[in-house]
Amino acid sequence: MRVMGIDPGLTRMGVGVVDERAGTLTCVHEETITTQPGDPVGTRLNYVFDRLVDVMGTFRPEAVAVERVFLKANSKTAIPSIQASGLALLAAATHGYPVREYSPAEMKMAIAGNGAAEKQQVRYMVRQLLGGKAGDDTPDSADALGLAICHINSSRMGNLIKLAR
Amino acid sequence: MRVMGIDPGLTRMGVGVVDERAGTLTCVHEETITTQPGDPVGTRLNYVFDRLVDVMGTFRPEAVAVERVFLKANSKTAIPSIQASGLALLAAATHGYPVREYSPAEMKMAIAGNGAAEKQQVRYMVRQLLGGKAGDDTPDSADALGLAICHINSSRMGNLIKLAR
Repeated sequence: MRVMGIDPGLTRMGVGVVDERAGTLTCVHEETITTQPGDPVGTRLNYVFDRLVDVMGTFRPEAVAVERVFLKANSKTAIPSIQASGLALLAAATHGYPVREYSPAEMKMAIAGNGAAEKQQVRYMVRQLLGGKAGDDTPDSADALGLAICHINSSRMGNLIKLAR
Repeated sequence: MRVMGIDPGLTRMGVGVVDERAGTLTCVHEETITTQPGDPVGTRLNYVFDRLVDVMGTFRPEAVAVERVFLKANSKTAIPSIQASGLALLAAATHGYPVREYSPAEMKMAIAGNGAAEKQQVRYMVRQLLGGKAGDDTPDSADALGLAICHINSSRMGNLIKLAR
């Protein structure tokens, strides 16, 4: 299966596409979409949306995993990040891709076996899980690859549970 | 000039289009886009986005005024509303419409002369300003019409200041 992970942000949006074939995970694409904080918000949202749609069209994932956003009081980046997460969900829905949201703790648990793992640890584990060939772009794209892997694991588990029943 | 106002929300998104000709304000369109809280967020965002794009295409406003969203801790509707505001900004940017954001206080000040005016007061004043022919849909669409009027007033003032210089 092929899954696209998205770590929402308006200044830096992490994107990663992972393939799973016979238990082997491969990084198909890794990218960090960036926009300038000084530019109009509409222009930035438009740019990010177009780029997400491009990546979806190019790699045609079977599912999209988006990091669930939370309200953090007094965070300057909270509003743009939440707006960016809306775009990610919209881009997937527009193209009919199934979407799942995972919290940062769920993703970290799946990747590093610890829901409170540090960024660096997640990045290291993502690279290990993908045969050393990924996680070299930014912490944002490493998180996106982590979300894709998290979704692949979750689907595998779901299938195993179905089989066991 | 013709301005479209948007009061962002995912369960209820207020939309209003106002024309100003020789100082007279007319309500051209008023609508409340609604989605079901139980449906998947992506589906709901998609529906709202498509409807916004439809209204923009039908009424072709010269500018779009969107209510600025704020972080409210412990608010269940904050995340969907902020995601919806991102869509409104995206829809306008995609079609190249100039966008301005106004805070609720700025809109209330422009409509009711009081930045802390009650919903009912805003609705009453919006109806008065539009010759009694509007503000009958929902508080959300009344706020949207209020945002459009707020932008028209703000543009008028901007022009007067330019002329005075």
